[in-house]
Amino acid sequence: MSVSQHLTTPSIYSSSSAFFANSNFHVRPQRISLPGKSIATCKCVAVPQEEIIAYKTNVSRNANIAKLQAGYLFPEVARRKVAHLQKYPEAQIISLGIGDTTEPIPELITNAMQKKSQALSTYEGYSGYGAEQGEKPLRTAIASTFYKDLGIEEGDIFVSDGAKCDISRLQIVFGSSVTMAVQDPSYPAYVDSSVIMGQTGQFQKDVEKFARIEYMSCTPDNGFFPDLSKVSRTDIIVFCSPNNPTGASATREQLTQLVKFAKDNGSIIVYDSAYAMYMSDDNPRSIFEIPGAKEVAIETSSFSKLAGFTGVRLGWTVISKELRFSDGSSVAKDFNRIVCTCFNGASNISQAGGLACLSQDGIKAMGEVIGYYKENTEIIMETFSSLGFKVYGGKNAPYVWVHFPGRSSWDVFSEILEKTHVVTTPGSGFGPGGEGFVRISAFGHRANVVEACRRFRELYK
Amino acid sequence: MSVSQHLTTPSIYSSSSAFFANSNFHVRPQRISLPGKSIATCKCVAVPQEEIIAYKTNVSRNANIAKLQAGYLFPEVARRKVAHLQKYPEAQIISLGIGDTTEPIPELITNAMQKKSQALSTYEGYSGYGAEQGEKPLRTAIASTFYKDLGIEEGDIFVSDGAKCDISRLQIVFGSSVTMAVQDPSYPAYVDSSVIMGQTGQFQKDVEKFARIEYMSCTPDNGFFPDLSKVSRTDIIVFCSPNNPTGASATREQLTQLVKFAKDNGSIIVYDSAYAMYMSDDNPRSIFEIPGAKEVAIETSSFSKLAGFTGVRLGWTVISKELRFSDGSSVAKDFNRIVCTCFNGASNISQAGGLACLSQDGIKAMGEVIGYYKENTEIIMETFSSLGFKVYGGKNAPYVWVHFPGRSSWDVFSEILEKTHVVTTPGSGFGPGGEGFVRISAFGHRANVVEACRRFRELYK
Repeated sequence: MSVSQHLTTPSIYSSSSAFFANSNFHVRPQRISLPGKSIATCKCVAVPQEEIIAYKTNVSRNANIAKLQAGYLFPEVARRKVAHLQKYPEAQIISLGIGDTTEPIPELITNAMQKKSQALSTYEGYSGYGAEQGEKPLRTAIASTFYKDLGIEEGDIFVSDGAKCDISRLQIVFGSSVTMAVQDPSYPAYVDSSVIMGQTGQFQKDVEKFARIEYMSCTPDNGFFPDLSKVSRTDIIVFCSPNNPTGASATREQLTQLVKFAKDNGSIIVYDSAYAMYMSDDNPRSIFEIPGAKEVAIETSSFSKLAGFTGVRLGWTVISKELRFSDGSSVAKDFNRIVCTCFNGASNISQAGGLACLSQDGIKAMGEVIGYYKENTEIIMETFSSLGFKVYGGKNAPYVWVHFPGRSSWDVFSEILEKTHVVTTPGSGFGPGGEGFVRISAFGHRANVVEACRRFRELYK
Repeated sequence: MSVSQHLTTPSIYSSSSAFFANSNFHVRPQRISLPGKSIATCKCVAVPQEEIIAYKTNVSRNANIAKLQAGYLFPEVARRKVAHLQKYPEAQIISLGIGDTTEPIPELITNAMQKKSQALSTYEGYSGYGAEQGEKPLRTAIASTFYKDLGIEEGDIFVSDGAKCDISRLQIVFGSSVTMAVQDPSYPAYVDSSVIMGQTGQFQKDVEKFARIEYMSCTPDNGFFPDLSKVSRTDIIVFCSPNNPTGASATREQLTQLVKFAKDNGSIIVYDSAYAMYMSDDNPRSIFEIPGAKEVAIETSSFSKLAGFTGVRLGWTVISKELRFSDGSSVAKDFNRIVCTCFNGASNISQAGGLACLSQDGIKAMGEVIGYYKENTEIIMETFSSLGFKVYGGKNAPYVWVHFPGRSSWDVFSEILEKTHVVTTPGSGFGPGGEGFVRISAFGHRANVVEACRRFRELYK
């Protein structure tokens, strides 16, 4: 143990004996004020550690976390936005970056959450711990709304606090010994959670990839669907369709190929369908529309973009009882164990909202909001197309993937931010295959989207 | 890959092209009905796998998950409750098992959640993704309510969806190479999450312990505080006070010893203070009341038992910037990276409720509910004491730890369930040190607690 300087606090505190006890809470009485030492800022980004460290424990830092590169993408984008605001305090920043929903949640859905909140203050309506897997009516509604006639039952649905959280829980189920393939580019939580779990080697700076991860190249040349004949076998294949960030949606034929590929290799597909409801084309909304998928695929999805629940937090994961590890044991059973041990279920208020979403009126109301965002998408696509850019995505997803051939994504990101005060997301943040692209999110108030497009036209005219 | 029987589904589905698109949701049209094959029931308990397995992937089951014994404790207790109800459909079951809150949430708190729900349906009040670490006003309120003058700042607080979830995220931060010590008995999520992360060896049936975990014996003989001179050094020391299940609360002197022990060994304490507000004695409510603790301790806590938020889901974890790994890097920074990558923040509605909890009136209202449960605790303690049992806990925690010397906990659990229809929790479910004890939870309506005690008196008179 290395103790360079031992700074114990100079006084002993004693708390009031009545604090928090016997029906009377009162705030801890003031004692000597001890301002916290400002040793480091706690951010998702690397900060230089020039501060004096008073004490170090003898616990080694997790080597897998040390492998991660810089911060998680979106907090890094947020940090640059804040820095920009500091530079231009008067700037009218428009954020088309992280993909955060902006439109109000339809009232019939918030009414259900109000009602549930109110009920929690009554004897009849109060409920404590729910089933870790989610409340049965919601699981049933998810199964019948999204997986009707696909052989998916209520018991196959695990309600959660969001798809990102479920991706991480799935990685815990798989453990450190599996190998993983991802689309390149892809949503960064897939790769990062794999690194964190110890499934990968070090980051290889020359190729901007982690060792032991199979990056499935998705480019305009292959229609953003990987050439599976060139993909090595991995245990896990994470596949997002409609894709974040490219906006590409896989066709039935492509998904049939993917399921066959997984089956031939004995792989498990983790299929992220969080944007399924933004599809215009007649492509499958669920991987379970492909025959045999239940034996090789897990599907994870979310109310975030479906119902504006990015802050309310609600998602789900589907694992059929037919999905088995090589020893014949049930994947769903292990996922259930993780859900029971590492999670305690989504908020009961959020679940009440989720159930309202899936009523007939709820589905109609959500569809209207989605339609609004889809109109935004069209405006953005039309803007960049008319400026002569090659534009991808958009039609089946709330993201527009704009090509800036030969340019660095972060440079374009900075150029757009500097000159138009619009926050986007640099394509290379999604993997090396995203280099040269910028993702524009269609989540925003119409006036902002229109204004952003006016500025884009000004910049790139 | 082993394919014993290849059962692909016999038809190809096609989804409606308008499904989820263009502002119009409608339910997938009915096609050929394919009832799911009922291959296995998905439960937290081991079920015999006699079913025919149609297909196995070639993905190996995570060896760490395979180490886990049976199901997670509380779902197992719930399963036995259900089995009991099937046997005695008319039984008036009273549940004093899992420790689930039963009393309504004070209205001023649910009002705040109603208001937030309603606001989400307006342009002015809508918010999407929040900071992953929680909203600043709530972080500030937690810091000032629970850590005033302890050198803990708003930036040290990470708001979460519950302490159990944070325990698991902390394990992800630590990774598979650390060693861990736990109180024996202790809340089972500590050991289980350690096993899942690969920190342990196999379960050793003879001693009922996992290899590589240091079990710190907590018995009536040592006043439920471990003899630290007999405890081997580990990287992580998980310590819960007031303890679940024993109800014991560590004194200032004991916690000073613990912090010194951690400091001497360069260990990190994970201090679970979820029951701090149930304390009657003048013991520290926070580990940070002990000088120097910020350099060696993390504290995790929860609104679950504080405000009846078991279903609403809200908790927090405190990590000071002074806590460092052996390489000098910040533990808070790595935790923040995990929170950003594997989690997306607690529900904004739950956070609005949490903020209301910490208002002056909220604190008073929560105190009244806690006072109610503490009266329950007294009734249960008085009952077992008067029947001649040695009874522990209770005074500083909502749990009564009843000694049945020489008897198996599960036997006593079954005896009580069979003869009184009251669900308790068997002590051995918390580790081998819990053998011979049963935990009685004080969470329940008064009438039920009184009735349960009447039945206990009948059984053990």
